[in-house]
Amino acid sequence: METRLTQTVKKGGCAAKISAKVLRDTLAHLDFSTSDPQVLIDGRDFDDAGIYKISHDLALVQTLDFFTPIVDTPFLFGQVAAANALSDVYAMGGIPRTALAILAFPLATLDPGIMREILEGANQKVKESGATILGGHSIDDDTLKFGLSVTGLVDPREMWTNQGAQVGDDLILTKAIGTGTLMAGLKAGDFTEAALADAMMSMCALNSVPALLSGDDRKYVHAATDITGFGILGHALHIARASRVTLSISQTALPVLEHAILSLSKDNLTRAHQTNQDYTSSEIRYMSQINEQSLPLLYDPQTSGGLLLSVESSQSHSLLGKIRKLFPRAEIIGKVTPRSVALLEVHG
Amino acid sequence: METRLTQTVKKGGCAAKISAKVLRDTLAHLDFSTSDPQVLIDGRDFDDAGIYKISHDLALVQTLDFFTPIVDTPFLFGQVAAANALSDVYAMGGIPRTALAILAFPLATLDPGIMREILEGANQKVKESGATILGGHSIDDDTLKFGLSVTGLVDPREMWTNQGAQVGDDLILTKAIGTGTLMAGLKAGDFTEAALADAMMSMCALNSVPALLSGDDRKYVHAATDITGFGILGHALHIARASRVTLSISQTALPVLEHAILSLSKDNLTRAHQTNQDYTSSEIRYMSQINEQSLPLLYDPQTSGGLLLSVESSQSHSLLGKIRKLFPRAEIIGKVTPRSVALLEVHG
Repeated sequence: METRLTQTVKKGGCAAKISAKVLRDTLAHLDFSTSDPQVLIDGRDFDDAGIYKISHDLALVQTLDFFTPIVDTPFLFGQVAAANALSDVYAMGGIPRTALAILAFPLATLDPGIMREILEGANQKVKESGATILGGHSIDDDTLKFGLSVTGLVDPREMWTNQGAQVGDDLILTKAIGTGTLMAGLKAGDFTEAALADAMMSMCALNSVPALLSGDDRKYVHAATDITGFGILGHALHIARASRVTLSISQTALPVLEHAILSLSKDNLTRAHQTNQDYTSSEIRYMSQINEQSLPLLYDPQTSGGLLLSVESSQSHSLLGKIRKLFPRAEIIGKVTPRSVALLEVHG
Repeated sequence: METRLTQTVKKGGCAAKISAKVLRDTLAHLDFSTSDPQVLIDGRDFDDAGIYKISHDLALVQTLDFFTPIVDTPFLFGQVAAANALSDVYAMGGIPRTALAILAFPLATLDPGIMREILEGANQKVKESGATILGGHSIDDDTLKFGLSVTGLVDPREMWTNQGAQVGDDLILTKAIGTGTLMAGLKAGDFTEAALADAMMSMCALNSVPALLSGDDRKYVHAATDITGFGILGHALHIARASRVTLSISQTALPVLEHAILSLSKDNLTRAHQTNQDYTSSEIRYMSQINEQSLPLLYDPQTSGGLLLSVESSQSHSLLGKIRKLFPRAEIIGKVTPRSVALLEVHG
């Protein structure tokens, strides 16, 4: 019988991340600060990506991500893990150039052929991005983990960050949500990989929006982030806080992956659904009647989720049209409003 | 009672690396090649460090390393893991600039304060190197693992690689060997951390030889590598193969850490001692009577070991003097000779 990778681990994908609250509490007094003027974005908040300036028009965008299997097929796991890691570079407006592999592999229980297939899947996605795997590190471990450390290049005068969202901007989300509950459903045996093709294709898709848009169009993006383990509201909160605005999000406008509601109805939830809700709850104001059935999607931890872009409103429909050529599920999901009592407002 | 980190894992440090033989067999048919002319050293051999050219006089040196605890004190573990990861950049002649943290932490069994102390230790060493921790990724896992992905800068015309060792060169090793057996002895309870101060100081020391030497002196270094999991002979083999020469090494000239021979006499060996011997055995010719008692040191997996430098012989004693200011245990341990039947010759 084929080994089902998801059955070899307790928690899958970004759901196994250490919660934002634990990280913030633990690292609050750590001093990652630097006097190096070339460090434009540092690790003070233990963020996923940092920026190091090489010259006035060139900077490194650096990020690192790895996790346990969320899918059963090794090649697919490699693809998803790579797309997920590359995403943070795209979220800063950068183009990936190099990657290093991070591999923890249980030699005692898994066939080494699985290692090769994972690396083949990752290598395919890294090549598709235009980057190269320069090397990596592997360790014999009890459970499988895989990911990449990625370096991209960006013009520091044009990089995208959590800061810069302007009142009036439209919010574009490039991928549908729901990978957290769906991958929990896969692990539980409620779905097969084949039945979750919509989610699988979404997680494999590179967030290559900076490569897709022209230089002019890229300037209409005032702020950006990618949606991963903290869910749509967790990452929206980071933009709201850094940009000193409120993000107003429409629950009904959110694109949702096929079978995600069905998976929720089967109680496929992860620990991260709860920790994400705890992390954001004090900052959210619900503005109207919310659909209770799909409420957990607001806290659903995404693996290789989409980009959330804060876009000049006069240009948002034009950009949405261009983005939909690669990301057919992209939608305008809300607006940026002046900072109010709550950093996030959710409309039903 | 204090948690002893080494008691929480089965295998410690670089001894938990996947063996070179398994890696080579598994990855033999993987195509990491690239058409990007800026990639100067890629992942074809799954090496620890890659080189990406930014301009004619500037290139990125990138490396990634992480492992399970080999010492009991969290702050010390962070220091050693950081020094070990930074070392690969120094081994290419580069200067570290940025780092991303890799953390797998068992929240269920270890106090989060341990996480903070590990990061503090790492941050101290990263700052000492002149680099900055830009961010990282953490995961809730069964056993503790920690390391860094490091990016340094180097002039690509002056970088050090495994290639370039010239017949007649002297071989300088900057640190004493024996961390593999000593850390196995620590885990087994044969030694306390305090008793192993010599090894602890050695593993914490940054391999900052490129920063120590002048530009002129750096040019006398024809090839370099750092000694880690594959041991002195495993890494010497990489230089011999890439430079198409034979490395002639004197067993008696090798600097050895305090208590290492005692630890061997107590049978403190790791699985890597055997896999390293298997990896190199067909390439070694023993030229004279070998000291059997210290033989396993030739295969001892090093954590944060020294640099092995292939140096212009007319300058080797001058360079050794300068290197000893920071690395008092540095020694000339052999010579580069024309390629013979064996890639490595070991003299007793």
